[in-house]
Amino acid sequence: MENTPDTMALKWNADGLLPAIAQDADSGEVLMLAWMNAESLARTLAEGRAVYWSRSRQELWRKGDTSGHTQELVDIRLDCDGDTLLMRVRQTGAACHTGRRHCFFYRPSAGDWERIEESS
Amino acid sequence: MENTPDTMALKWNADGLLPAIAQDADSGEVLMLAWMNAESLARTLAEGRAVYWSRSRQELWRKGDTSGHTQELVDIRLDCDGDTLLMRVRQTGAACHTGRRHCFFYRPSAGDWERIEESS
Repeated sequence: MENTPDTMALKWNADGLLPAIAQDADSGEVLMLAWMNAESLARTLAEGRAVYWSRSRQELWRKGDTSGHTQELVDIRLDCDGDTLLMRVRQTGAACHTGRRHCFFYRPSAGDWERIEESS
Repeated sequence: MENTPDTMALKWNADGLLPAIAQDADSGEVLMLAWMNAESLARTLAEGRAVYWSRSRQELWRKGDTSGHTQELVDIRLDCDGDTLLMRVRQTGAACHTGRRHCFFYRPSAGDWERIEESS
């Protein structure tokens, strides 16, 4: 196995952000991907719940503050090159803003991406 | 459930890329996150194996071409706002370039990120 450093520095992108994957700690389901800046990561660690940075609103996004759909942090990992975070979480309610359990519900179909669920 | 469009367009970032999460189709383990441009995504779909865009080398990265550690595509999904891909894959060998099964082996510790495994 290749030698790897004992510690790894966070490698923020040009906007000062890192992608953070949220995975259901019990089912293993990948729930969503959102972004963190240094402050949101610090709050996530301090509060034990997912706090993202909303790129559209340009503000801290304490997941669940308005919806109640919080993500309790079970653990968090940084990857081998320091530019992606993976959280295992206990999700209350729906991870997706559409009310779905997770966000990944489009599949490729004839050159397009179509919604999987039958419900509207 | 909130109404959602029947189809979703890909929302490439300013560099023409999307993050793509690779998840082990059998164990549910999140293996890695890498990036795709339009050509790599097209090749992934056409070849049925993960083809990324290497940001460091600025070239197509057909995962496993040099290492043999290919990722056979089981399915691929796009998220609710069209800016993240999730692949379920059958991983041959190690997903991580360090030889580890997956890339997420640093954890927070006293303000730093420390390697989890005991091996070096």
